[in-house]
This record gives sequence, structure tokens and C-alpha cells, in this order.
Amino acid sequence: MDFLSFLTSLATSFIIFVVLMLLFTWLSRKPGNAEVYYPNRILKGMNPVEGGYMTRNPFAWIWEAMYSSETDIINMSGVDTAVYFVFLGTALGIFVFSALVLLPVLLPVAATDHSIRAENTTSNGTFTQLDKLSMGHVGNSVPRLWAFIVATYWVSIVAYFFLWRAYKHVTELRAKALMSPEVRADQFAILVRDIPSASGGQSKKEQVDSFFRAIYPDTFYRSMVVTDNKKVNKIYEELEGYKKKLARAEAIHAESKKTNPDALKPSHKTGFLGIIGEKVDSIEFYNDKIKELIQQLEGEQKVTLKEKQQSSAALVFFNSRVTAASASQNIHAPIVDTWTVIDAPEPRQLIWTNLSKKFYQRIVRQYVVYAVVFLTIFFYMIPIGFISALTTLDNLMKLLPFLKPVVKQKAIKTVLEAYLPQLALILFLALLPKFLLFLSRAEGIPSESHVTRAASGKYFYFSVLNVFIGVTLGGTLFTSFKSIENEPNSIFSVLAESLPQNATFFLTFVALKFFVGYGLELSRIVPLIIFHLKKKYLCKTEAEIKEAWAPGDLGYATRFPSDMLTMTIVLCYSVIAPIIIPFGVVYFGLGWLLLRNQALKVYVPSFESYGRMWPHIHTRMLATLILYQVTMCGYFGVKKFKATPVLFPLPIFSLIFGFICQKKFRRFFVSPALEVVSHELKEVPNMEIVFRYFIPPCLSAGKSDEHQFEDALSHASKTGSSTV
Amino acid sequence: MDFLSFLTSLATSFIIFVVLMLLFTWLSRKPGNAEVYYPNRILKGMNPVEGGYMTRNPFAWIWEAMYSSETDIINMSGVDTAVYFVFLGTALGIFVFSALVLLPVLLPVAATDHSIRAENTTSNGTFTQLDKLSMGHVGNSVPRLWAFIVATYWVSIVAYFFLWRAYKHVTELRAKALMSPEVRADQFAILVRDIPSASGGQSKKEQVDSFFRAIYPDTFYRSMVVTDNKKVNKIYEELEGYKKKLARAEAIHAESKKTNPDALKPSHKTGFLGIIGEKVDSIEFYNDKIKELIQQLEGEQKVTLKEKQQSSAALVFFNSRVTAASASQNIHAPIVDTWTVIDAPEPRQLIWTNLSKKFYQRIVRQYVVYAVVFLTIFFYMIPIGFISALTTLDNLMKLLPFLKPVVKQKAIKTVLEAYLPQLALILFLALLPKFLLFLSRAEGIPSESHVTRAASGKYFYFSVLNVFIGVTLGGTLFTSFKSIENEPNSIFSVLAESLPQNATFFLTFVALKFFVGYGLELSRIVPLIIFHLKKKYLCKTEAEIKEAWAPGDLGYATRFPSDMLTMTIVLCYSVIAPIIIPFGVVYFGLGWLLLRNQALKVYVPSFESYGRMWPHIHTRMLATLILYQVTMCGYFGVKKFKATPVLFPLPIFSLIFGFICQKKFRRFFVSPALEVVSHELKEVPNMEIVFRYFIPPCLSAGKSDEHQFEDALSHASKTGSSTV
Repeated sequence: MDFLSFLTSLATSFIIFVVLMLLFTWLSRKPGNAEVYYPNRILKGMNPVEGGYMTRNPFAWIWEAMYSSETDIINMSGVDTAVYFVFLGTALGIFVFSALVLLPVLLPVAATDHSIRAENTTSNGTFTQLDKLSMGHVGNSVPRLWAFIVATYWVSIVAYFFLWRAYKHVTELRAKALMSPEVRADQFAILVRDIPSASGGQSKKEQVDSFFRAIYPDTFYRSMVVTDNKKVNKIYEELEGYKKKLARAEAIHAESKKTNPDALKPSHKTGFLGIIGEKVDSIEFYNDKIKELIQQLEGEQKVTLKEKQQSSAALVFFNSRVTAASASQNIHAPIVDTWTVIDAPEPRQLIWTNLSKKFYQRIVRQYVVYAVVFLTIFFYMIPIGFISALTTLDNLMKLLPFLKPVVKQKAIKTVLEAYLPQLALILFLALLPKFLLFLSRAEGIPSESHVTRAASGKYFYFSVLNVFIGVTLGGTLFTSFKSIENEPNSIFSVLAESLPQNATFFLTFVALKFFVGYGLELSRIVPLIIFHLKKKYLCKTEAEIKEAWAPGDLGYATRFPSDMLTMTIVLCYSVIAPIIIPFGVVYFGLGWLLLRNQALKVYVPSFESYGRMWPHIHTRMLATLILYQVTMCGYFGVKKFKATPVLFPLPIFSLIFGFICQKKFRRFFVSPALEVVSHELKEVPNMEIVFRYFIPPCLSAGKSDEHQFEDALSHASKTGSSTV
Repeated sequence: MDFLSFLTSLATSFIIFVVLMLLFTWLSRKPGNAEVYYPNRILKGMNPVEGGYMTRNPFAWIWEAMYSSETDIINMSGVDTAVYFVFLGTALGIFVFSALVLLPVLLPVAATDHSIRAENTTSNGTFTQLDKLSMGHVGNSVPRLWAFIVATYWVSIVAYFFLWRAYKHVTELRAKALMSPEVRADQFAILVRDIPSASGGQSKKEQVDSFFRAIYPDTFYRSMVVTDNKKVNKIYEELEGYKKKLARAEAIHAESKKTNPDALKPSHKTGFLGIIGEKVDSIEFYNDKIKELIQQLEGEQKVTLKEKQQSSAALVFFNSRVTAASASQNIHAPIVDTWTVIDAPEPRQLIWTNLSKKFYQRIVRQYVVYAVVFLTIFFYMIPIGFISALTTLDNLMKLLPFLKPVVKQKAIKTVLEAYLPQLALILFLALLPKFLLFLSRAEGIPSESHVTRAASGKYFYFSVLNVFIGVTLGGTLFTSFKSIENEPNSIFSVLAESLPQNATFFLTFVALKFFVGYGLELSRIVPLIIFHLKKKYLCKTEAEIKEAWAPGDLGYATRFPSDMLTMTIVLCYSVIAPIIIPFGVVYFGLGWLLLRNQALKVYVPSFESYGRMWPHIHTRMLATLILYQVTMCGYFGVKKFKATPVLFPLPIFSLIFGFICQKKFRRFFVSPALEVVSHELKEVPNMEIVFRYFIPPCLSAGKSDEHQFEDALSHASKTGSSTV
């Protein structure tokens, strides 16, 4: 890619960005779009246009975002989102401080070196303007390289400083959230798994109750055995489905009555897809169905609570959050793979079906999933290549002859020929996050937030290994494969050798990501179109409209790895081609600003894990830093610089730094510290509410009295007082 | 070593054993020796000769030992000793069950094979009678080797079975000990380290009190800040010394009065070694000194308690053992390298000076110690060889000319010439356990039992690497060094090749260990002689006599590794030369019997860690098993047996087995399980006694009232009730 096409691509991206920004400014001021641009405010019961966004400066959102405090973010979007901004801020800080030294020092040093040109006067000017500013322009083993050595150290030191500061800050955030005087149901419960089978005809509930009451006589409140809810859940979902259909039929009827008072009641056929079968009056039919299902549900609820307690998991409630926090960290039985405990996740993020998976089953599942992920990361190209080879246009026509007339069209043929080979890859990449989430869920993890963390880790390894290392090595790898085979260490020198060749590619990649990616993010063009289409043609009831604009959450599982990929790229090129750093600064700066707006106004978090994501982010940033340091060692080796060993302590420093961080901070992100939760609550918790909060909807539906929970859900402790 | 000399050596050992046994039978029946043969019974206030040992069958002790139950052992010698017998029993079980299959099958298979002799008819009969019974006698790649493959699996399976059974049993033992209704002081305390520096002019005591009282308002009793006791301890020890001297002087005076009523009071000179200086009346002098020191001590105690609280460690007491057990497992502060907690060891095994070592200091110390141990294990021969070279007789005479006349004596010269070269090695081996204990203590470990465990691990690696692998490879290693350098994996085939050559050596080694070692152990000849010499010539007071027969403990730090070495040798040879198994059976059987006697009657445990040694023993037995399995893979490879890969899964099975054991049992040996400690106590604990139990003697000496503890030792909690 020459310099001109680089500039062209940059300019194109920028124009798209500007257009999208203008679109956003225009669209977000239309009242009819408020549900798309301010859903978080609407759901929180706030006025979406408070402060007069519609009338004021069209760029007011920028000031809003910039001057919003961390507390605003926590209030509007939770601690996890605040932690995400700490991450963006850390990356930004690292790059800004690196740039302050690297740009004014390294660019002149690189640009004014003439040793290579002097040596290779015969080379036909392969140095573009961009390459002149990179380390590739500096001759081998010249003293100037010392400046790059110092720069490598400087970037590392800046990274240590910001990483340390961030970990400390996130610890404070988490502590503050956990010590909040608000009563949070999940702070009063623990999740117990691997309960051994009861002896002597005890029911599971009695077993759990007597076990915990003996240990915590004063603070045990009651327990809830996790039941097998498959059947009752199915009935419940069916019921909810019919309720929606009824509401829809009624809405249609009401509408048609408005125009024609004698309009027929809506009707449909009961057979397959409403095409065949007996024709019935919809409203009557749905009402009958609902009545019938409510009866079924009640019966099944009783059966489930009484007879489906075979599961080995339970939630245990305490009337003190110190006891709950303490209980979640203790071993309770001398055989430590039984009665395993963790602090209860929020009820909304509990994965009920995973709770009763057994201890060793979880371990085996974990390793199997790791193996599958490993195979996916390293060999995903094989099936995709195979499918691509099969799905050529000719093959397609042979297999599906009825497509022939369509495919023969000139225009369609051209498009298909261009995209068919990549179709498998595109589909794969689109489905990959879902696949990784599915795999993580299959590990037997009990909460959604943990699944997100696990999937995000897998996606990170996939992106770094395939996009960064894959693209960099690209063809080089196969030609150099022999040398790598003989000497595995040389992978780093091969990587280092191929780095400078790809600098321009990655510059464009990062620029595309922030201009087009963030432009789409802010303007929300796609959700806007979908919302309006749905609203116009599909939605009949209020509930359906609300569903149509439901904003979802920030999507950490893909957002973190994608940012981490950018960080890896910028960090690894920071010294080799310092011109990339401003791109990194823009990426994280613009990201910080835009997502601040989105977090305040658009996205609604689907869980709160009190910043548990952080240790994973930290570890991955450190891994990126080590990759950068090792690559630099390799690159200086390629440059035949004698002082290269000066860099060798760097990865060791990073490992020690990581070790200390882990010792100092990690465990608090696994278990709540007692000092923190011992802060006073603003009110005595109503344990009945706390308890009911955890009852899955399929069991609580249609209930107002509690006597039917007696069977799987234990009585309130007689001795338990309600004070904390 | 030919067969005859092997038999001779075996016979000699056996005769020594018989002589020592007879000596024991004779000596132990003399009433004057009761303190040497029954000290544990005497210290427990029991009649040493209860049941009429003196008059009954001289072999009565055998029945006594055999029919003593595990409960007897626990009552007389604690859980740790019972765990030691579980270890002996496990090793015995593994070898007995292995022998049941291996001896009747492998010996005939090996003895009846003629393939090698048939091939090498020219070899001049290198097969002794013993070698005929070993795997070395079986030809290469003959189908008979299948029997040995099956045997390898059989030994592994037997080992898994017994290891699993033992871990389960020890878990029960530990649980039983921890749930005992007796009030044990250490179950009500936790040890807190890494307390951050207090803010706002708080004293350490106030800081600790307010911290824990906030978290455990109902169960916190009081705290004891660890003070810097160096000075007060020095005064205390001086005082104790003078008290002993006074008692001695008075005893001498009383004795001399008996024979001569006008005897002079004992006197001594105050100068260097009592040789020079002013002559004083001893009794008067000591009395003055004691008075003076008591005053000094009281003053220093006050100063220490008030001003020497800079230490970052404290003991915290709770009036419930469930809370104490729970607190020892929780994180208390969000910065998790502060306020680190562990369950308090018994006061008698606390290493006070280690308590206030800082978190990272401990980690650094640990790694430094590991490095030193590594160097010691691998390169200890270098300085020893160097010293040996220097301390030849000629050099000695040159350096210390005054020795010349002595050394010139023919007899002395011969002895010196024989032993001088080994002198450094002998000294090194004698001092090694002490050195390893010193190193382990230097790690910053807070309790003696933990130090013992750590030292025992280090000694284990030293013995296995140097004695077993060292002797086996011996010269072979150096000749094969080149091939190992090129191919590190080949170390196992070199090891495997050299194994059969050394079978006889190790047979003799094991036999020597049990006949002579256990003979000396049971007869206690050395302690007996020392006791009688001391009693006759040195001891004047009752206290001095008691000190002279104080039996000490079983010495786990050296006993375990020594047994483990035997186990390694027997296990590794079990299939190659099955004839070694009976030796292993005798070693562990005889050991079990003899030490049972010693545990019941002689040794007094110096600490109780409730079986915490077990996970370490288990891991090392498993490591030994894996060494055996890998060696067998190597040996079958040397035998060029095609089916060798059949053995490859074995080490993997062992690793999985170890992983499951760790997951299932390990954590209970780190922290007490709450279910266990929630069992009821037989009485409400008197917290005052519990607390006083932990006051170091140098601070409690000469005190009866408690008000002076106010400063470093906090007040009893006002809110703390005394119920549990």
C-alpha cells in the first residue's frame, strides 16, 4: 500500500465518520427517535431530553460526556461499565504518555538517519514517506538504536504505572460498590453446589437447612434448593407466549373496531403455522389456553417444588451480609469437593441449568471446552477453506439447479463470485462470539457475567493470534516454517522481521475501526432502522414496541477483545513505527467519549458483577505488554544491535509486576473482603423480599402467598433475628 | 558384590539386631532405666511399668504395640504421630499386596528364562543367584516381559488404592481431632500478619481491636499485638539461667552438708569461665542477680508492651471456634496483601520472631531459600571435595604442627587416613538436617510444625536425588554425560540401564537400615549411656535430671525423608528385582511395630498440627510412584520391548489421581472446615485462660495480675459474651 492510497483510505473513513456524526446530530433531535437514542434514560424513568438537548448546541452531547463523573456512570450503568472506562482511560494514558516522549524523539531520529539509504543506493526508493518515520529506516547496529531501546523501556514503565494505578482504582470502585448502604439481595445469599446425597430419608431442603443452621445458628435465614425446572419453565414460557398473543389479538381487534365498529374478531387456524386446521376466534382461544395453562402451571409448580429436588445445588440466605460474604469463602465440609460455595450472583444472571452440574463434571467440561477453543483458534481455517472450495458458483448451480436462472444474471453473478469464497469465513466470524459464549456456558459456569468474562478471554486469544500474529506473519510464516520448526524461538524473530512491512496495513485498520466503527456506534443507524420498521409493520402492543427498542448492554464479550486487539497492535508498533501512537490515542480517546454518551443514554447493563472483569483485563493487558517486549527483543536482534540483551530483563519485570498485582489485588475480585461488607446498611434488610427476589419467574408466577414454597424452599429460620 | 558377601552382610546385620533386641529386653526391665524407656508414660503421670512389664514375658512389648489402637496413639502421642503410622501402614500395604502377586509370578518367570544365557554362552557366568530372580535375567523383547508389564500396572493400582484410602482416613482423623469437645486454645485464635501502619495516632492495639470488632461485633474477644521481645527475652533467659544455677548451688551445698555439716558454701569466681575474677559466695551472688533481673524484667516488660508494638502481626481471639475457623479463611481488607490471616498455631510452636516478617519479604526469602536448597542438592559435592582435598594428613600436619607427635602414631595415623577424606562429607550429612531446618525457618514460616514440613520436603529431594539417583547413576552418569546433554530425555534410560547393577547394593542398604537402624532405635543405647553419664557426673537438681532424660519427639523432619527414600528404592526395584519387596515389607512392618512402642512409651510430641503433614507425604509418595513408572518406561525401552508404550498412560493416570486427591482433600488440611468445628464443646471456654495460654513466657513471667497487658494486649471485648 503506497502513501497515497493510505491517505485516500484515511480520508474516506473520515468522511464516513463526519456523515454519520451529522446523521446522529440530526436524528437524535427528532422526538420520535428518543427510544433509540435515550433508552437508558427512558427505562430509568428520566426525561430523555432533560437539559434541552433538542434545542441546544448539537454538540452538547460531547460536553455532557466529557463532564460526566464516574459516579454518574455508576448510577446510570453500573460498576462494570465504570471499569470499562477505567480500561479505556488506562490505554489512553499509556499511549498519551508514550507519545509525549516517543514522537518528538524517535521520529526525528528515524527520519534523519541516512545509513541505510547510503548503503543501498541501488534500492529503488522503497521508503515511502511513512516508512521514513519508522525504525525500519534506521540502519542496522547504529548507535541511534539506543534511542529506541530507551523508548522501549519508557513505554513499559508508563504501562506499569497506569496498570498499577488502574488496579488500585478499580479495587476502590469495587470496595465502594460492595460497601454501599443499599440492601442488595445478592449480598445476603451464597450459592452452594455439590451437596452430597442426603442420608436417612431427609429431603434435600432439610439436609441443607440442618447443615447451615448448625454452623450459623444466629444468621442463617433460609435456603432454596435448586429444582429441576425444565418442565415448569416450558409451561411458563408457553403461557407467557399466549398472553402476548392475546394482548396482540386484543390490540388488533380494538384497532379494527375504531375504523369499523362491526369488525370481525380476529381469528386464526390452529394447525401448522396458522395455515391449516380449524378456524377459531383468537381472543377466546387464547383466553381458554391461558386458563388451562395457569392450572397446569400451578400443578407443575407444586410437583417441582416437592419432587424435583434431586439437584445438588441450593441458595442459602443469611440475614447478615458479613456472614454471607464470610460463608462464601469458607470450606464447610472436610471433603472439600462437597458443599462448595461461592457468593451468589444476582438472580437475573443466574444460569439455573448450570447450577446443579457436578464438581468433576465441571472440571472435565472446562478442559474439553479449552481443547475445542484451542482447535478453533489454530485450525479454523481448515473447515472454512474446505467449505469455500465447495461453495463455488459452479458447485452451487450443480447442487441447487433451481438457482440457475437467478445466478446466470450478470450483476448477481459478479457479486456472488466476489463474496461466495469468503461467505464461510464471514459467517464464521459473525457467529464466533455466539459460539464462544455457548462454549463458555457449556463449561458449567453459574453466572452470565462469568460466562461473558470467559468468552471474552477466548475471543481475545482468537483475535490476537489470528488477526495480529496471523496477518503479520501471513505468507512469511509458511516460507519460514522450516526455520521455525528447527528452532521454535525464532518465531519471535520472524514476527519481528515481518512487523514493519505491515505497519501501514494496521494504521489503516485502526483508523477504519475508529472512524467507521465508532461512527456507526454513535449514530445507531441499524437499530434505528430496525426499530422503525418493526414499529410500523410488526408491533401492535406497547410491550412489543418496548421490546423493539430494548437497547441491550455494552456487549463486553466482544467489545473488550476488540479494544484489546487495537491495544496490542498499537503497543507492538509503538516503538517500531511511532506514528501509530496518535491513531491509538484517537481510538481510545474517541471511544471513551462516544461510549460515555452511549453508557449514559443508550445501553442498559444486563448484569452487575462489581468490576470482576478487571483482573482478566489486567492480565490480558500485561500479556500484550509482554508480547510487545518480546517482539522488541526479537526486532532488535534482527537489527543486529549489540545492546539487545539490555531489553531481556523487561519481560521478567513484567512477570514480577504481574505476580505482585495478583498477590495484592486478585483475591478481592474473587471474594468480598469482610471489612468492606461490614459497613452499616441504611435499613434492616427485609429478608422476605431478598428471598423472593431469587425465586425464578416460572415458580413465582401467579402466586401471592408463600405456603407452596415450603417444600423446596425452607422455612424462615426460627432463631434468625431480622437485625444485621 | 557377590552373593556370599551379600549373605554375610545380611547375617551380620541380623546378629547386631538380635543383640540389640536382647540388650533392650534386659535393660528396659531395670527400674533405673525407666526414664529412658518410658519417658512418655512418666511425663503423662502414668506408671511406667503398668501391667507388670518387668515381670511378664520379655516380648510383651510386641503384643502391646500390636494391639494398641489408633486412639491409644492419639491419646499418648497426638494426631501427627497417628498420621505417621498411617504412612507406615500405607507403605506396608502397598508392598504386601504387591508381593502377593509379584513374588509368585515374576520370580519363576525370571528364573526359568534361558534366552540370555543361551545367547551369551561365552559370558563367564555373571549371573549370581540373586540376579537370576531379576528382570535383568529375562531376554530382550521376549513375550515373558508382558508379565512384568502387568506387574507394573498391578503395583500402581495397589498404590492408588492405598493412597486413596489413607488420604480419606487421615481426613477423618483430622476432622475428629478438630471437632473434639475439648477446649483447645489454638482453635479460638487466628494469626493476623501484614497489618498496615495505623493512621491517626492510633496504637497498633487500638487499630487491630477496632478493625476486628467492627467485623465480628459478637464474637471478637480481644487481641494480642506481637511485640519486639528481643530484649525482654534476653533478660528472661538470663534470669532463668541464674535460677538454675542457684538451684544447683543449693543442691551442692545441701549434699556437702550431709557428709560434712560445716561444709563451706559453694563459691565461684565472677570472671571469664569462672577462672578469674573476684571470688563470691554463689548462693548469695545468684540471689542478688535474680532479684536485680526480676526488677529489670518487670521494667522491660512494661516498656515492651507499651512501646515495642511496631510489629505488623497480632493474635486475635474469638469466643467461638466457628468464627475463628471462618476468620482464618476470609479476606478482610480489599488490598489482600494486608491483614493476611491464618489459623493460629499452638503457642508452643509459634516462632515469634518470624511473625512480624512482611508479606513480600516472606516471598523473597522463600525463593532465595529454594535457590540455596537447589544449589545445595546439586553442587554440595564441590565444596566437600575441595575440603577433602585440603584436609589430607600432610596438610594437617603442616597447618597444625603441634599435632605431629600424635599423628605420627601408627594406629592413629591409619584411622585418620581412613576417615579424614570423608570427614567433610560426614560432617555435612550430620549437619544437613539442622541446616535445612535453619533454612526453612529463615523463610519466615510462623510455626514449628510448618518448618518441619518444609525441611522434610527439602531433605526428601536431597535423599532421593543424591542417594537413590546419585548412587544408581554413579559413574555411569559421567560416562553417559555426553549423550544426556544431547538428549535430556535419555536420563531415564541411563537410569533404567544402571538400575539392575545396583539392586544388591540397595538390598543391603535397606537391610542395614532396618536391622541396625531399628535395633539402635529400640534399644536406645546412646540415650541410655548419655543419661547415665549425665546423671552420675553432671546433674545435681531434679530439673537437671529431668532435662537429661527428656526424650524429644519423633523427628519428622528426618524420619519421613529417610522412610521415603526406602520406599522410593523398594518401589523402583519392585518389578525389576521383586526380591527387594520382602525387604521393604520387613522395613515398614518392623518400623511400624517398633515405633509404635516408641510412640506409646518414649517420644513426646513437641507440637500438634492435626495431621497437616499428610498432603506433603501424599504428594511425595505420588512423586515416588511417578518416578517408578517413568523408570519402568525407560527400562522396558532398554529391554527393546515393543509393548513399552502400554506403560505410557501410567504417569498420566498418576497425575490425574493426584489432581483429584488435591481437589477433594487438600484444602481441609489448610483450613478447618466449619462443619467440623461447629460441633459442640463440652464446656464454655474460659477465654481468659485461652488468652493467657498465648502470652510468651518472657512477658508473663512473675505476673499474677493482668493489668500490665493492657497496652499491647487489648481489653476483653465489652460486647463479647462468653457463650459460644
